[in-house]
Amino acid sequence: MAMTGVLRPGHAQMRVLDLEESVKFYSDVVGLVETGRDKQGRVYFKAWDERDHNSLIIRQADKPGLDFFAFKVDSKATLEKLDADLIAFGVKTERIPAGELLETGERVRFPIPTGHVIELYAEKTDVGNGQPYVNPEAWIPAAEHGIAPTRFDHGLLYGPDIDGAREIFEKVLGFYVVERIVLEDGKTDLAIWLSCSIKAHDIAMVRHPEPGKLHHVSFLLESWEKVLRAADLMSINRVKIDIGPTRHGVTRGTTIYAFDPSGNRFETFCGGTSGYPDQQPIKWTMEDVGRGIFYHDRALNDTFLSVVT
Amino acid sequence: MAMTGVLRPGHAQMRVLDLEESVKFYSDVVGLVETGRDKQGRVYFKAWDERDHNSLIIRQADKPGLDFFAFKVDSKATLEKLDADLIAFGVKTERIPAGELLETGERVRFPIPTGHVIELYAEKTDVGNGQPYVNPEAWIPAAEHGIAPTRFDHGLLYGPDIDGAREIFEKVLGFYVVERIVLEDGKTDLAIWLSCSIKAHDIAMVRHPEPGKLHHVSFLLESWEKVLRAADLMSINRVKIDIGPTRHGVTRGTTIYAFDPSGNRFETFCGGTSGYPDQQPIKWTMEDVGRGIFYHDRALNDTFLSVVT
Amino acid sequence: MAMTGVLRPGHAQMRVLDLEESVKFYSDVVGLVETGRDKQGRVYFKAWDERDHNSLIIRQADKPGLDFFAFKVDSKATLEKLDADLIAFGVKTERIPAGELLETGERVRFPIPTGHVIELYAEKTDVGNGQPYVNPEAWIPAAEHGIAPTRFDHGLLYGPDIDGAREIFEKVLGFYVVERIVLEDGKTDLAIWLSCSIKAHDIAMVRHPEPGKLHHVSFLLESWEKVLRAADLMSINRVKIDIGPTRHGVTRGTTIYAFDPSGNRFETFCGGTSGYPDQQPIKWTMEDVGRGIFYHDRALNDTFLSVVT
Amino acid sequence: MAMTGVLRPGHAQMRVLDLEESVKFYSDVVGLVETGRDKQGRVYFKAWDERDHNSLIIRQADKPGLDFFAFKVDSKATLEKLDADLIAFGVKTERIPAGELLETGERVRFPIPTGHVIELYAEKTDVGNGQPYVNPEAWIPAAEHGIAPTRFDHGLLYGPDIDGAREIFEKVLGFYVVERIVLEDGKTDLAIWLSCSIKAHDIAMVRHPEPGKLHHVSFLLESWEKVLRAADLMSINRVKIDIGPTRHGVTRGTTIYAFDPSGNRFETFCGGTSGYPDQQPIKWTMEDVGRGIFYHDRALNDTFLSVVT
Repeated sequence: MAMTGVLRPGHAQMRVLDLEESVKFYSDVVGLVETGRDKQGRVYFKAWDERDHNSLIIRQADKPGLDFFAFKVDSKATLEKLDADLIAFGVKTERIPAGELLETGERVRFPIPTGHVIELYAEKTDVGNGQPYVNPEAWIPAAEHGIAPTRFDHGLLYGPDIDGAREIFEKVLGFYVVERIVLEDGKTDLAIWLSCSIKAHDIAMVRHPEPGKLHHVSFLLESWEKVLRAADLMSINRVKIDIGPTRHGVTRGTTIYAFDPSGNRFETFCGGTSGYPDQQPIKWTMEDVGRGIFYHDRALNDTFLSVVT
Repeated sequence: MAMTGVLRPGHAQMRVLDLEESVKFYSDVVGLVETGRDKQGRVYFKAWDERDHNSLIIRQADKPGLDFFAFKVDSKATLEKLDADLIAFGVKTERIPAGELLETGERVRFPIPTGHVIELYAEKTDVGNGQPYVNPEAWIPAAEHGIAPTRFDHGLLYGPDIDGAREIFEKVLGFYVVERIVLEDGKTDLAIWLSCSIKAHDIAMVRHPEPGKLHHVSFLLESWEKVLRAADLMSINRVKIDIGPTRHGVTRGTTIYAFDPSGNRFETFCGGTSGYPDQQPIKWTMEDVGRGIFYHDRALNDTFLSVVT
Repeated sequence: MAMTGVLRPGHAQMRVLDLEESVKFYSDVVGLVETGRDKQGRVYFKAWDERDHNSLIIRQADKPGLDFFAFKVDSKATLEKLDADLIAFGVKTERIPAGELLETGERVRFPIPTGHVIELYAEKTDVGNGQPYVNPEAWIPAAEHGIAPTRFDHGLLYGPDIDGAREIFEKVLGFYVVERIVLEDGKTDLAIWLSCSIKAHDIAMVRHPEPGKLHHVSFLLESWEKVLRAADLMSINRVKIDIGPTRHGVTRGTTIYAFDPSGNRFETFCGGTSGYPDQQPIKWTMEDVGRGIFYHDRALNDTFLSVVT
Repeated sequence: MAMTGVLRPGHAQMRVLDLEESVKFYSDVVGLVETGRDKQGRVYFKAWDERDHNSLIIRQADKPGLDFFAFKVDSKATLEKLDADLIAFGVKTERIPAGELLETGERVRFPIPTGHVIELYAEKTDVGNGQPYVNPEAWIPAAEHGIAPTRFDHGLLYGPDIDGAREIFEKVLGFYVVERIVLEDGKTDLAIWLSCSIKAHDIAMVRHPEPGKLHHVSFLLESWEKVLRAADLMSINRVKIDIGPTRHGVTRGTTIYAFDPSGNRFETFCGGTSGYPDQQPIKWTMEDVGRGIFYHDRALNDTFLSVVT
């Protein structure tokens, strides 16, 4: 009842071309907190205000991109139930044992028709947000180390069958569509924004011929002024900005898209409306898609539909 | 699964001493949108960005205060289930027929041990937020008429048995505690902040000898700069400010408390952390209660524990 | 002593292609206050917080651009002295009688080597900022009508001999250089930003083959959030944005460049450092010119050096 | 011509009760940059974005307060001229030799009828703002060390004969009155705000029986969000806040008043209108003095007229 089942994006594992360069980038520029390294050489990060042990994991690879994207569920019982529900829905799941990721419980892993690997898990060690659970302060110095988002917020996945993926998220995992872009035929979705909470989106997808592609992972900032600060820090650190600071029409959130040293796009996002499952989704049509994506430019930039990892 | 059951604070009915003065106040100073009046003479308002027909109802009375505070649930089936669950839990419920409040479905009404009347309902007419559901703008002129909060956010109730009320909210309605203030004995709660979503609070309660008292109803603003604008508008309109602009330690939200012409306190609130039900509640102790409530002054003002309606 | 002589940009007269469309644009979108129309058909505006009768004058013409750009001086004695100084410096001046522009005293008009017409004047009727001079409020509703800048801030002129123009501004009018962009030869200025106060710039110039060209007139906003609001209003009103919201490296100010219906570029500008005449100018070199102009993109856009009116 | 003569508040020397505690306070909490110590044991600070060597000097003493408050003038010639003008006006001046304060040229020192010591000087070593004069960044890490104001902005002095002091500032030093509070008699000033530039105030004075008292020195912040950040840092560091965050009616600036460990009040100030010498001063009357000083509370707090050092 109320907030149950799938809670939020929990972790994403991404591939980077040069591990140490990327560790430096995610630590000092993005301003995440490194929380551990495992035997495989993977490096774990969390946003400063997150309490669970990790939300971003990076590993060195030949090409950039996303290995998997995971959601935390509210209990082990829910994890079992959702695994059973997925199987009943015809989704092939597998179990990844507890501890395969540091400080993380057993995971249920499954492919979705966009070609991405999604995971569910119920347990990740509470390492705190650098403050006591009794009489904390409003924030700590880590809130100003680098861009310093408060949390890993959502991801935007590119792949072919977003209708099939949507069915799984809606019918099995309890997500609902908050906004969508509809193609000229008036019925096919070009893009969908899905929430499992009251966030404007916990996951989003764009129809795209290549499977399993990542458009961006997104980190939350607290204000439009923090978005300016993030843009400044990107310039100071010579980070390639894709677009921004600007606003999205979809979600109304303010945003910067930029690239990590491996070419993975990330977003620093702020605001956005609240969604609720009883609310009618907002629809965008192709004649206004530019304004829907980039509210001020009112046009897609060259990279929006083409550059993914 | 995910966001179900009780969704959010839906409406509150408040008593005012002079109806037309209050209509003017809530319309032009607070900047709510008047959406209707009923045969009983009650006046209905919504925040500009809300889509349901009403969230604040005022009626003329001899003394100010709160008649009832209601939550919207996700479906009629949930409404039936929660009614049954409440009865099974020993709560005495009654049904208010659809239409008794304008554009609102059947309500389940029940008392809680703090002496307040709570309601649940599943249906309220979607009148939109002044924009189409296709290709909307980021905001409309109503977003700048008066203080213009985006939504009715939460309420703070004062009454004697907050433990009993908490049990109902947690065990029957699916809320969870996000933060609490604990008295010197280390176990009795002076105050609790409860969420049914990922908001820092959907309802809060303070232990208080008199039953059924209202500390404040709260409206959401989008930024700290909007909080300044609200304070300016309060001054321009000679609205009595209780405290603020400032920050709360609890929830970290920024805030102004002020009074409507009848003496009902209202809050213009911004930000606040997200809560999640898997997260350990934050505890405040009495030696830091001042900082918990008013983060900058680090002391309660005279009115916080004493002035209620 | 202290703040004397030339005080600030006082008025600019611009050409527009369709007068009534432009009046509507400058009134309702930019949010200036129309203060009068004269027998020639010119329309006068001021920013809401300015006290003098006008700061922008528009007239219908076959092509857009700037007729003249004027500075207010502190007294008629100064006006006489500066006229004499200009003549002594070899500048050819003429007098425009009081009243030729509404509510404006006698003007001293002269050409500068960039091909622009500059004016000085000492008197313009104080019509107030919509508030009494006794016990005013912090702002009034006009502060939220359209983009609603607080003042006409500066202009950027394009023309060939910026060195000659600079001499006049520095040696006769008491301006000083705050920042400059130096060409690859290490000595020729591509652009200069000049102040007669402690503003980051009261006038700026870029070296350009065509004489008398206008890059933009600039209006001041009070915060980065107002810059976002301006960008939103530009989108809502389908105003063509050239670039922004972003930051300039030069001056550090935040900015949007956009075009009026006639193609004249205007800026909504915020912040910017304070300059002082005892401070060493900041120099930008050609390898960093992109970052100097557009701090986040770190590259000039296509229009910066080419689109002028 | 334009910006000449007296340029700005240059330095203030203050007395503190415990030097090292105060050094820590001004360095780490206020976030000034320590730039030197002299043989007398005085410690020198500048705000991060100031270029001159020092703007605040503290020395250990038995009681807190202000030793002297100084303005920088544009040249040695101006210094000589103003000294002569002061003497001609009947002010008794003395010369403090160059080097008596670190990296500071010769000073002209004189008493004013409020009982304060004022200084003028023309030279202070440019030590830069931590950035090169060629192709700088928008800001540096020092901009986020502690409260980190960008500059020493102004001071508010309490003393008996503010009329006499005003005469010197207006008639000799070229200041002008921007705003004033007039007592019930309609002519006597309770307080005056004076500018030598286009700032809302470079110095202010309140009529008060005791001579030579300091109400506060003020440091400039860049945004209302930085004011919130300052208030947060004051709480995190348990700094005693007098009032704020709030807005002044006078100047419209946003503000926090707080106390250093010795009881000296300081302000973190943001915004404020621009003044110009051709503009009519704004007058506040005693029935609105509360709103003039603290725009939101619309009442003076207990300490405003009584707590000075």
